[in-house]
Amino acid sequence: MERHREQELQELRQRLLWMGSLAERAVHNAVRSLVEGDTKLAESVMEEEAAINSLQIEIDERVLRLLALQQPMAVDLRMITAAMKINADLERIGDQAVNIAQCVSFLLQYPQVKPYIDIPRMSELAEGMVKDALDSFVKRDVDLAKQILLRDETVDQLRDQLFRELITYMMERPSVILPAFQLTLVTRNLERVADHATNIAEDVIYMVLGQDIRHHASDKR
Amino acid sequence: MERHREQELQELRQRLLWMGSLAERAVHNAVRSLVEGDTKLAESVMEEEAAINSLQIEIDERVLRLLALQQPMAVDLRMITAAMKINADLERIGDQAVNIAQCVSFLLQYPQVKPYIDIPRMSELAEGMVKDALDSFVKRDVDLAKQILLRDETVDQLRDQLFRELITYMMERPSVILPAFQLTLVTRNLERVADHATNIAEDVIYMVLGQDIRHHASDKR
Repeated sequence: MERHREQELQELRQRLLWMGSLAERAVHNAVRSLVEGDTKLAESVMEEEAAINSLQIEIDERVLRLLALQQPMAVDLRMITAAMKINADLERIGDQAVNIAQCVSFLLQYPQVKPYIDIPRMSELAEGMVKDALDSFVKRDVDLAKQILLRDETVDQLRDQLFRELITYMMERPSVILPAFQLTLVTRNLERVADHATNIAEDVIYMVLGQDIRHHASDKR
Repeated sequence: MERHREQELQELRQRLLWMGSLAERAVHNAVRSLVEGDTKLAESVMEEEAAINSLQIEIDERVLRLLALQQPMAVDLRMITAAMKINADLERIGDQAVNIAQCVSFLLQYPQVKPYIDIPRMSELAEGMVKDALDSFVKRDVDLAKQILLRDETVDQLRDQLFRELITYMMERPSVILPAFQLTLVTRNLERVADHATNIAEDVIYMVLGQDIRHHASDKR
C-alpha cells in the first residue's frame, strides 16, 4: 500500500512535468511563429492545445483518485492539492500561447511595427519561470520558488517598457495603431504566463513551508 | 461526527459565498469609481482587496482541514475540491477589480474619450455571471451553470465592439490613444471577470455530473 501510494504520487509529479513541458513549448512556439511569421507553426500551437486540455483532465482525475482512495495526510495532502492548482495554471499558460498564436495571421497583414527583440526576450524569461517553478515543485526547493517571485518584476518592467515604446509608434503613425495594439496584447499574454509561474511558485512555498505567502511578498499582480 | 461534517461543509459554502459577494462588490465599485471619476471609491477597492486575500487563505485552510480530518468520499470530495478552485477564481476576480480601480486616477487626467455606457453594461453582465455561478454552486444547479457558459460569449462580443469603437477614436485623434488604450484594458479586465465566472460554472458542472466539460462546450477563452 505504502509503495503503491508513493508510485501514484510519483506518477502525478511526472504527468505534471509533462504538462508543464507542453505548456512551455506552446508559449515558445507561439512566440517563434510570431517572430518568424510562420502561420503553420501558429496553427500547430492551436492544434496542440487539445493535448494540454486532455492532460489537465487526466491530472485532475488522478488528484481526485488519490484524495479518495489514499486518504492522504499532511505532507502528501499539501502536495496533491498544490498539484491540482498547478494543473489549472499550466492549462491557462496553454491558453495564453493560443492567444498569441491567434495574433500571427492578423499581424502578418501589416508591415512589422518594430524589430521583434524584446518580445522573444520577455518570452524567454516567462518560459524560464515556468520551467523553474515546476523544478521547485518537484525538488521542494523554496529558495528557487522565491527567486521566481522576484523575476516576475523583471517581466512586468519589460512589458511597461515595450508598452511605452509601442505607444510612441502609435502616436507618430496612426496606421500602426492596430498592429501595435495587437503587440501590446501579446506582451500582456506573456505577462500572464509569468503570473501563472508566480502562482505556481507561491503554491510550492505553501506546500513546503505550510505558510501562505501569497499575499505578503507579491501583493500586486 | 456526521453532523459535524455537514456543518463544516455548510460553513465552507457560506464563506465562499461571502468571498463571492466581496469580489462582486469590488468589481462593481471599481467600475462605478471609473464612471463617476471617484478616486476615493477607487482607493477603497484597493484597500478592501486585503479582506478578499485573507478570506482566500482562510478558505484554503478550511479545505485542507476538511480533506485531512474528514477524509471525504465521492460527492463531498468533488464539492471540496471545487470549492478550492472557485476560491482561486474569486481571488483573481478581486485582482481584476483592483486593476480597474488603478486606472481611475490615470483616466481622470484626460478628457473622457466616450460616454461610459457599454463598460457599466459589460460589468453588470460579468457581475451577474459571478453571482449566478456561485448560486449554481450552492444549489448544485447544472442548468444555471450551463447558461453562464453561453453568457460569456455576450461579454466577449461587447468587448470586441468596444474595442473597434475605441480604435476609431484613436485613429481620428492620436491625443486619445493613451486613455482609449487604458479603456480597452478595462474591458479586458471585465472579460477576465466573466472568464473566471465561466471557470466556476464549469467546476460546478463537473462537481455535479462528474464529467469534465471544460474542453468541450467552450474551448476558446
